Amino acid sequence: MRQSALLRSAKGLALPSTARKRDTKVAKVTVVASAPPDDRHDHFAVRNGVRCAGVHLIVDLHEAKGLDDIDLIETTLRRCVDEAGATLLHIHLHHFQPNGVSGVAVLAESHISIHTWPEVGYAALDLFMCGTANPDRCIPVLRKAFSAGRVEVNELLRGQKA
Amino acid sequence: MRQSALLRSAKGLALPSTARKRDTKVAKVTVVASAPPDDRHDHFAVRNGVRCAGVHLIVDLHEAKGLDDIDLIETTLRRCVDEAGATLLHIHLHHFQPNGVSGVAVLAESHISIHTWPEVGYAALDLFMCGTANPDRCIPVLRKAFSAGRVEVNELLRGQKA
Repeated sequence: MRQSALLRSAKGLALPSTARKRDTKVAKVTVVASAPPDDRHDHFAVRNGVRCAGVHLIVDLHEAKGLDDIDLIETTLRRCVDEAGATLLHIHLHHFQPNGVSGVAVLAESHISIHTWPEVGYAALDLFMCGTANPDRCIPVLRKAFSAGRVEVNELLRGQKA
Repeated sequence: MRQSALLRSAKGLALPSTARKRDTKVAKVTVVASAPPDDRHDHFAVRNGVRCAGVHLIVDLHEAKGLDDIDLIETTLRRCVDEAGATLLHIHLHHFQPNGVSGVAVLAESHISIHTWPEVGYAALDLFMCGTANPDRCIPVLRKAFSAGRVEVNELLRGQKA
């Protein structure tokens, strides 16, 4: 059995909020009743002339370092959001024991996820963005932050027939 | 400009916790210093004899309904987690205005994400799981919950070379 050392969650916007808590059988739900205006930010995308719901980059980092550094991972996700021109709504990171981090950043333009396997220097990321946010700009950020020896990127145009 | 009506976030485990708050320039970070024991749950996977970091199903729902019903979406994500035999660590849903929902469920076995476009009956989901959790079992749950006329599923074996 492994102890989870760190559970970190943050909202991307500093909101004056009216939090309402409701106990469920499994977990507490925090509902923020009010939030500042936000756009869904042109919730389709065009890539090479193809209209789709969003551009989804499947990114694999190999021979990477810093994959157990939760502060580095959080900073890097935030930097990716900024570089892509996206809007962060919520970020949550979970630090496993003995090692490994899972994290998601919910964006107005969809999401970024990361799962790391530090023991083998591998991380799996998904960069899913619609509108004008550009996930390509995250790649050099990731390569540099984690000193990745090899980066594989595959692109999916989600919802082309939507 | 669209108003976000609902921001919902929940931890999958009811934790007695020691929360530490740190202000950042952009957002507050809530850190839970202690958590109950959890496994990374055999953080690799084997699919058709191929060892990989995890099985990632790319799921597109077309001609679907209920895609603006945040309660239905939350219930369905939780049901997917149960059906797959996965462990929910954190769930966050964001309801856009005038419509559309984005959500992520962070699992001990990776994550489930959903982004909906109710106006065109389309939803994009990712079911990424490692260990013994089986994302295939989510497909009939999704098909039924959202009355999808058409479901496309593509499978990626992430980190085969990890």
